[in-house]
Amino acid sequence: MSKFDDGCIFCKIVKGEIPCHKVYEDEYYLAFLDIAPIDRGHAILVPKSHATDLLTLETEYLDKLGGVIAHLCGELIAKLDAVGLNVTSNIGARAGQIVMHTHFHLIPRYEGGDPLNWHSGAGDHSELAKLAERIRGEE
Amino acid sequence: MSKFDDGCIFCKIVKGEIPCHKVYEDEYYLAFLDIAPIDRGHAILVPKSHATDLLTLETEYLDKLGGVIAHLCGELIAKLDAVGLNVTSNIGARAGQIVMHTHFHLIPRYEGGDPLNWHSGAGDHSELAKLAERIRGEE
Repeated sequence: MSKFDDGCIFCKIVKGEIPCHKVYEDEYYLAFLDIAPIDRGHAILVPKSHATDLLTLETEYLDKLGGVIAHLCGELIAKLDAVGLNVTSNIGARAGQIVMHTHFHLIPRYEGGDPLNWHSGAGDHSELAKLAERIRGEE
Repeated sequence: MSKFDDGCIFCKIVKGEIPCHKVYEDEYYLAFLDIAPIDRGHAILVPKSHATDLLTLETEYLDKLGGVIAHLCGELIAKLDAVGLNVTSNIGARAGQIVMHTHFHLIPRYEGGDPLNWHSGAGDHSELAKLAERIRGEE
């Protein structure tokens, strides 16, 4: 059952109070483009219910997680002609977690790109919007 | 249903042909300590069936993945007095995947540690053995 935290930016995105460049949505999960991408098509996958981290995420969401990640990785790679992808989730501030609503980063990697690059840069919103359309298969 | 690749090192570990410092096992997954840890208690979680990456992992394994990761993260943090943890999986050589059997790295992080350190170093096997016992709750 969904629960939200009024001060949480990802809860606000899930509720539609803050816009996002959506790339995937189902009953349990929402994914959108990171506005400061590490690489093209860098997406953030969040459960549509507030939980600080995986340790407190409810079972019904955990049960769906693997399938959703695998599906979304496949979509990102296929739609963006990527050749690889990094999946990562940080638990706790000491591990680099910034937004305290559990999430996975899905970072496509490309032929000729630098897989060791983990620096993010501000994305252009019109480009992100086009990219999200492409991933959703609407272009 | 389990299937194995004769040339795969993780399949050999799953089948017991190569020893490991086991920290978790159930019907679907095995986790063991990385012998070149990035931080203390760095574990590798693998499905007990060969699949190159998440995109080709069978549904019955995907369905269990989220719960297993969450459980193991909780165990590592609690048993090792960690304050955070990085979960990561690389898909494809261009994303840094080295062993072509899908796996997740679970890297505990500690108070006073460097969360930006991603360098691994050769582990001492007697220390790894003790650490694995501690995580399994056998010390």
